[in-house]
Amino acid sequence: MTVCHALIQRLPHERLLYLGDTARVPYGTKSPATVTQYALEAARFLQAQGIKLLVVACNTASAVALPILREQLRLPVIGVLEPGARAAIAAGGDRIGVVGTEGTVNSGSYERALQVLRPETVVFSRACPLFVPLAEEGWADHAVTRTIVGEYLASLLDEEIDTLVLGCTHYPLLKSAIRSVVGPDMTLIDSADATAEEVEELLRSEDLLSDREQGGQEFFVTDVPTRFQTIGRGFLGENLQLVTQVQIG
Amino acid sequence: MTVCHALIQRLPHERLLYLGDTARVPYGTKSPATVTQYALEAARFLQAQGIKLLVVACNTASAVALPILREQLRLPVIGVLEPGARAAIAAGGDRIGVVGTEGTVNSGSYERALQVLRPETVVFSRACPLFVPLAEEGWADHAVTRTIVGEYLASLLDEEIDTLVLGCTHYPLLKSAIRSVVGPDMTLIDSADATAEEVEELLRSEDLLSDREQGGQEFFVTDVPTRFQTIGRGFLGENLQLVTQVQIG
Repeated sequence: MTVCHALIQRLPHERLLYLGDTARVPYGTKSPATVTQYALEAARFLQAQGIKLLVVACNTASAVALPILREQLRLPVIGVLEPGARAAIAAGGDRIGVVGTEGTVNSGSYERALQVLRPETVVFSRACPLFVPLAEEGWADHAVTRTIVGEYLASLLDEEIDTLVLGCTHYPLLKSAIRSVVGPDMTLIDSADATAEEVEELLRSEDLLSDREQGGQEFFVTDVPTRFQTIGRGFLGENLQLVTQVQIG
Repeated sequence: MTVCHALIQRLPHERLLYLGDTARVPYGTKSPATVTQYALEAARFLQAQGIKLLVVACNTASAVALPILREQLRLPVIGVLEPGARAAIAAGGDRIGVVGTEGTVNSGSYERALQVLRPETVVFSRACPLFVPLAEEGWADHAVTRTIVGEYLASLLDEEIDTLVLGCTHYPLLKSAIRSVVGPDMTLIDSADATAEEVEELLRSEDLLSDREQGGQEFFVTDVPTRFQTIGRGFLGENLQLVTQVQIG
């Protein structure tokens, strides 16, 4: 939803179709094989709706499923991981910390993406399994959240990182707690904006930009919409219209 | 796994087939319709293995899916919720607190089960969405866990409850943090033992008790076994043999 928000801000003329696999989330604790299967099923559903470009707005799925999605779909596919890595390098990061789910961190995908861009980059990673439940519980500003952030980031701060990649689309919700732990000088990378920028460039270069007045959004979920609507309001700051439950897979 | 542990202790001659739907957990944040669908798929898999009795070792599934499971399976089906409610009433609980997942608490099933047993019982419930991730992260004895327990239980303690039902099979792992918050006089109800007792009684009354020397266990999971084996060791205190990945649904 943080990526969705960035896309709506940057590309208001584009029609956005969003699928949340709410009946099977979280993906961050699941194996690469299972995440890949779920991501393929989700992608095929969206492809059947006639989309022109797919954004994999989840770091875990981007980390493990992107090559197969690109191979199996006849569509441009953009993940959130490469734009995040590019933004970290562009910001001049030298010693880069990455926080993410167990799936993302175990994949080693950020290390690879960062070192492809600049081989001498030093990367330190840490899985933070409590961040997603804390964000979903709405405890972004709770004292306990700052304590947990401090605990997870201690080993990265010991390594004197200068840049921290928020390698999960939930983590920007905890940005103020993270900022209070890392101090004012740390560069924080949130891949949502970088991803939206890359989507715009690709649409422009392929001459696929929309000429609608207002794009609008449609939301699809695999579980009943109630909980998604409540959490979605926290992310987008507005009520979600048009949320439909669908079966995939 | 806490129920599994209690069953192995009480009924060592019974062969135990355990299915963990690791590709789709947690159930606690999902809708009753989705949990019911998943529980039916899981139950049908186990029925096809030739089981003689089904234990629904999950409070959320017990809270929302038990009537349909009993209707659709030709097997005795025991959930964890009714044994827990019986144990709370047997312990003399007068003002009973219940903690559980959002699914369990929203269902109101504990209130109903407790008030069927003794209509004048006063019940106060609280969903504790961070308890499962804290238990799975292995932070049972972490200071932060005691703070979170204190926050969740404050409203129940204000109501001067005398008994607290641990209405999720993960929560016994946090028992010492919970005990430190509620003090030594609170009765804590963990439905695992009560459930195992009820299973024994039912097998005895139906003349279904095993005469094997050693029952042994078989574990099935829907995602790859690695993470399950790590977490399972924490629950059972021993390495899990025979863990097989299966497809259900």
